[in-house]
Amino acid sequence: MIGRLNHVAIAVPDLEAAAAQYRDTLGAVVRAPQEEPDHGVTVVFIELPNTKVELLHPLGDNSPIQGFLDKNPSGGIHHMCFEVEDILAARDTLKAQGARILGTGEPKIGAHGKPVLFLHPKDFNGCLIELEQV
Amino acid sequence: MIGRLNHVAIAVPDLEAAAAQYRDTLGAVVRAPQEEPDHGVTVVFIELPNTKVELLHPLGDNSPIQGFLDKNPSGGIHHMCFEVEDILAARDTLKAQGARILGTGEPKIGAHGKPVLFLHPKDFNGCLIELEQV
Repeated sequence: MIGRLNHVAIAVPDLEAAAAQYRDTLGAVVRAPQEEPDHGVTVVFIELPNTKVELLHPLGDNSPIQGFLDKNPSGGIHHMCFEVEDILAARDTLKAQGARILGTGEPKIGAHGKPVLFLHPKDFNGCLIELEQV
Repeated sequence: MIGRLNHVAIAVPDLEAAAAQYRDTLGAVVRAPQEEPDHGVTVVFIELPNTKVELLHPLGDNSPIQGFLDKNPSGGIHHMCFEVEDILAARDTLKAQGARILGTGEPKIGAHGKPVLFLHPKDFNGCLIELEQV
């Protein structure tokens, strides 16, 4: 079911400093910040040869990553995103096996303009998993 | 400096259950467990089309991931590993910019038989980063 690892997402307390570190210290290709008001985050993509790192910083008052940063003030790895071909088929297969989908269970449009869903970390070894239809 | 994302590592409380979940529920290609006594872990690699997920479980009495599992009993994302061409050059560049290397600062041979180093999470947005020379 799962295909490529689309990205690993990191919540960071200082987006500018983190982007500069990936660009200048780690020598990676760093894209411009994108505000995603529907998701309550500003995102910076780091382009690696085979996948992406996504830096996340809260945007607005109800950002879903503010709680994570409150618990982890230095930041931390927030989630990983696997690609799937058919997100509704993937969801239904996972639900039939007892996995819980976060939110309404209906896909939202993610930062890449594609449908995404998040799976409950308690069902997946404490890891927040995003599925993105490609 | 950094190249491909070699893997994302997940510490899991039950290696057999986690491997079965990636194989049966998530439909991924799952390799056989490998004991790595020098690193205090048993490892299962999940092969994705573009990278790997590495499931980690403590092996022996002084496993470096036991503390992580004590704090996160359900498991969680433990580190990510970036490939570099020359690990000593990478280390020296990072040290010159103030980043701290864990342990002695000398590369060890990692689970893939290649030299690896770990960077201090406090210097990298709370993320444990492994560098592997390829």
